[in-house]
Amino acid sequence: MSQRLPYQLVSLNWKKSRTVFEVKGTEIGGEDLFMIAGPCAVESEDQIEKVAAHIKELGIPFIRGGAYKPRTSPYNFQGLQEEGLEYLKIVSDKYNLGVVTELMDLALLPKVYDATDIIQVGARNMKNYHMLKELGKVDKPILLKRGMDATVEEWLLAAEYILLGGNEKVILCERGIRTFDTSVRNTMDISAIALAKQLSHLPVIADPSQGTGKRSLVGPMSAAAVVAGADGLMIEIHPDPENALSDGQQSLNFDEFDEILPSIKGAAELAGKLVSFSKQKKDGQKQFIKI
Amino acid sequence: MSQRLPYQLVSLNWKKSRTVFEVKGTEIGGEDLFMIAGPCAVESEDQIEKVAAHIKELGIPFIRGGAYKPRTSPYNFQGLQEEGLEYLKIVSDKYNLGVVTELMDLALLPKVYDATDIIQVGARNMKNYHMLKELGKVDKPILLKRGMDATVEEWLLAAEYILLGGNEKVILCERGIRTFDTSVRNTMDISAIALAKQLSHLPVIADPSQGTGKRSLVGPMSAAAVVAGADGLMIEIHPDPENALSDGQQSLNFDEFDEILPSIKGAAELAGKLVSFSKQKKDGQKQFIKI
Amino acid sequence: MSQRLPYQLVSLNWKKSRTVFEVKGTEIGGEDLFMIAGPCAVESEDQIEKVAAHIKELGIPFIRGGAYKPRTSPYNFQGLQEEGLEYLKIVSDKYNLGVVTELMDLALLPKVYDATDIIQVGARNMKNYHMLKELGKVDKPILLKRGMDATVEEWLLAAEYILLGGNEKVILCERGIRTFDTSVRNTMDISAIALAKQLSHLPVIADPSQGTGKRSLVGPMSAAAVVAGADGLMIEIHPDPENALSDGQQSLNFDEFDEILPSIKGAAELAGKLVSFSKQKKDGQKQFIKI
Amino acid sequence: MSQRLPYQLVSLNWKKSRTVFEVKGTEIGGEDLFMIAGPCAVESEDQIEKVAAHIKELGIPFIRGGAYKPRTSPYNFQGLQEEGLEYLKIVSDKYNLGVVTELMDLALLPKVYDATDIIQVGARNMKNYHMLKELGKVDKPILLKRGMDATVEEWLLAAEYILLGGNEKVILCERGIRTFDTSVRNTMDISAIALAKQLSHLPVIADPSQGTGKRSLVGPMSAAAVVAGADGLMIEIHPDPENALSDGQQSLNFDEFDEILPSIKGAAELAGKLVSFSKQKKDGQKQFIKI
Repeated sequence: MSQRLPYQLVSLNWKKSRTVFEVKGTEIGGEDLFMIAGPCAVESEDQIEKVAAHIKELGIPFIRGGAYKPRTSPYNFQGLQEEGLEYLKIVSDKYNLGVVTELMDLALLPKVYDATDIIQVGARNMKNYHMLKELGKVDKPILLKRGMDATVEEWLLAAEYILLGGNEKVILCERGIRTFDTSVRNTMDISAIALAKQLSHLPVIADPSQGTGKRSLVGPMSAAAVVAGADGLMIEIHPDPENALSDGQQSLNFDEFDEILPSIKGAAELAGKLVSFSKQKKDGQKQFIKI
Repeated sequence: MSQRLPYQLVSLNWKKSRTVFEVKGTEIGGEDLFMIAGPCAVESEDQIEKVAAHIKELGIPFIRGGAYKPRTSPYNFQGLQEEGLEYLKIVSDKYNLGVVTELMDLALLPKVYDATDIIQVGARNMKNYHMLKELGKVDKPILLKRGMDATVEEWLLAAEYILLGGNEKVILCERGIRTFDTSVRNTMDISAIALAKQLSHLPVIADPSQGTGKRSLVGPMSAAAVVAGADGLMIEIHPDPENALSDGQQSLNFDEFDEILPSIKGAAELAGKLVSFSKQKKDGQKQFIKI
Repeated sequence: MSQRLPYQLVSLNWKKSRTVFEVKGTEIGGEDLFMIAGPCAVESEDQIEKVAAHIKELGIPFIRGGAYKPRTSPYNFQGLQEEGLEYLKIVSDKYNLGVVTELMDLALLPKVYDATDIIQVGARNMKNYHMLKELGKVDKPILLKRGMDATVEEWLLAAEYILLGGNEKVILCERGIRTFDTSVRNTMDISAIALAKQLSHLPVIADPSQGTGKRSLVGPMSAAAVVAGADGLMIEIHPDPENALSDGQQSLNFDEFDEILPSIKGAAELAGKLVSFSKQKKDGQKQFIKI
Repeated sequence: MSQRLPYQLVSLNWKKSRTVFEVKGTEIGGEDLFMIAGPCAVESEDQIEKVAAHIKELGIPFIRGGAYKPRTSPYNFQGLQEEGLEYLKIVSDKYNLGVVTELMDLALLPKVYDATDIIQVGARNMKNYHMLKELGKVDKPILLKRGMDATVEEWLLAAEYILLGGNEKVILCERGIRTFDTSVRNTMDISAIALAKQLSHLPVIADPSQGTGKRSLVGPMSAAAVVAGADGLMIEIHPDPENALSDGQQSLNFDEFDEILPSIKGAAELAGKLVSFSKQKKDGQKQFIKI
């Protein structure tokens, strides 16, 4: 084991070349900016169908959506559960989209495994080391969110658990930490993205929706994350955020989402990443989004 | 549901009398101070036997010990697992001690259920809502540690998940939160004990070992917790802390433990709680610990 | 300078005996629990007169009251300033009470020096090193509040600045730190009291009013602080907290204050400290407060 | 006063157009990215001369350098004080550079006023409301650093104190907050930049050196700050960071500084800001820095 670092397999000292892998035809950790969009929670077939159609049109390859939702209060919407996974499968097939959804508990692994291309470990489970060990044996990539109270070192050690089990396809995802500042829901830690890229060969992406909890900050923080080195973004969008069943205040509607894409594209180019977004005009003509 | 509070079943508004229940002959939440002691991790049959003999002599009714250990690094000792549970059962039978041990993952519930009298939910799992829901259906008491990044409200909401499932035997346990101050491992939040007692009818205990991470603070923080209203204490002790496989720096050896008991007894009396500790002298005579 | 510690003069390694000194006939840091009470801010002569009369009757030797108030908003009450200092002097003379008041800026030192027996450095000024150096040259004791974002080490280093200037009469005061938990205004760090007493020979007191920001927690946290080793308490009281011009939600009215004194007395006795509170009955008879 | 916001004068609701002002020929808050560079502390005439010559060559209009240094330990270098101010004046005259230096205490205002074009209020003084009021009466711009424990709202309220006194030339500066994460010295809060720009008309700049405390992060965090909306950057550079008397680990040497300028330029262009850096080749030919 390395003398100076507490982790080994995830370290850029140990593996000098950056980890790049392909999931459902999309390269992650390479030249392309990896884009994921979708609602916080799957709420209905209609909702997820609308989102899928929109992101397909834009050329975004992955959809997100929670079927099992970890909610602070038991009286809040807990997700559609199996029904939600079913809707994700339907739109994934119809639009040939990759799926990212969260595994809330190991007991749900068989169901979630079947419905998703990338298994998300939520912030609340980043230190669930028993789960991490089991995910080391799974043959699907893991999107490992940083815990709200996790140092960068602890985050990398959590990834080490998965790699040590044999699964090398781990995507780190910064999603905001908990600080004293109540001006935002979480304090998105852009420096953690830059630092993780300097310390580890694993791909690092950012979730600016959860990361800030505030719609107006999603655009600037997306661009900032990419400029600081993020390999991708996961952004919450919803056909009607005002009536979302969870986290509407941090979700963008489709127009708002389209509006921030040019700055994301600019940031990607500045960071040496490629990305293309396109959109059909209402009259059927293809239109490139204004940059 | 109450209009003003986010939780209901755990609230002292909803249930006006304090929750008191008995586990293996010991009353929790009532007049007696509920004492748990034992090592961070079960390391060997010999170690746990020594601890059990010592606490039995003192009249402490419950032993703690982790069989599955959530460790930040995969390269650290992960616990004896099933073997550890086995040792707990042996000493529990031999000395008629109650057992508290942690459930790290729902998949381990059948094994842990058989070996313990109280199921501990660790700080890292306090927001594992799927686990909390399942524990609402279990017929054993739950010791619910406060998450390192959990507000008091979130802690009570986590307990609400368990009560809503039908299990009313929940013990809240303050174990320190994560702050900027590196002078201690965690910042033990004594005010959370007082506040939880004012807001909820559930018993509240404190873990000053994990709560501070520093041996020299365990004594004063134990007394402070009791004076602030704690219904009990869970304290880490080890026959040889210098050579402990985990968290030795916060464990007391047997003599150090004996030395803090008088101040705990005094604090309990000040708070209107009863507690008695006794000890055999080496020459066989019964000796009350000096107060 | 000590090799291992960043500070020297404040260290218990450097000076093995605890620092005890007398201010206006009251011993601080010794056997007696040092009690200070009074309003957050001096609001009127009538208000401060009522407080002074009440604490004199109880045998509390020091009154507190802010004349210059550091307020987050410029639109909030900023203190009576010189007029406030004048009222403190009047009641100090009339009742022979010691005075503690805050120095907000060095430019105000001449005025504050004349009006107070102990100069308070507020949490916001704990890292105002220029001020600390100047206070090292002053011949009055300094009550040094811990900064909301200060580690215990930084707090002790701030005291080191004052001692290095030649003023050895420093009283450390824990007043809560800033954490993520919004259930309380500040997280009062009882372990910092115990730790500061283990590391330094200086007297350490606690401010449970500012420390919690919540009236209902002042009683339990006062007792907890004393049991953990505090040499004294500074408690906010007000004749009419509901109409206080600042921080009413953390101030006790006179009856509430009287009610918590027995538990403070009990805590002091448990910690080996002496304290006596007494009160005249309304019919003129002397009455000891119920313990 | 506004009904919904705690501040008024600093608010973008109150003044709809962004504040732009000129200092020593440089426009701040307008189209140009405002660049400040220099050492943490002025250490010698030679050091500050080298820095001044380098930044002049690059076209950077302002030099920074602390003459009075707020240091956690009294045993660390405290700054050259008046001598340091003198050196700043010398290079300011020689190279026609603007100067930013910190006012540690109001008592030092006459000296600092004479030596600087912009008066810096450090993070430790952001809540020194007496100082802020006095600076409201001063006819020089104030660079107001965010306190390590200040919410965005408290930061804006601190600026409100200055504007209320009559000084409308305030530059907000994000410099990292204190969190639990020890991977970095401070957690630089990029979202605070975006949020401050959305809430206030005042110029907002960033200090990525103090903001991260880590040399390798200064480049990516500079670009991220600009993309998120920062109107300028203050970066610590030193001719020989390894031997700096303070904060060398976060200072760039001249080559490292030159290397990050192209990405800053790119970020500025993406954000709609103008910036030009140039450099003489060693053979005397003018050379534009590679972008």
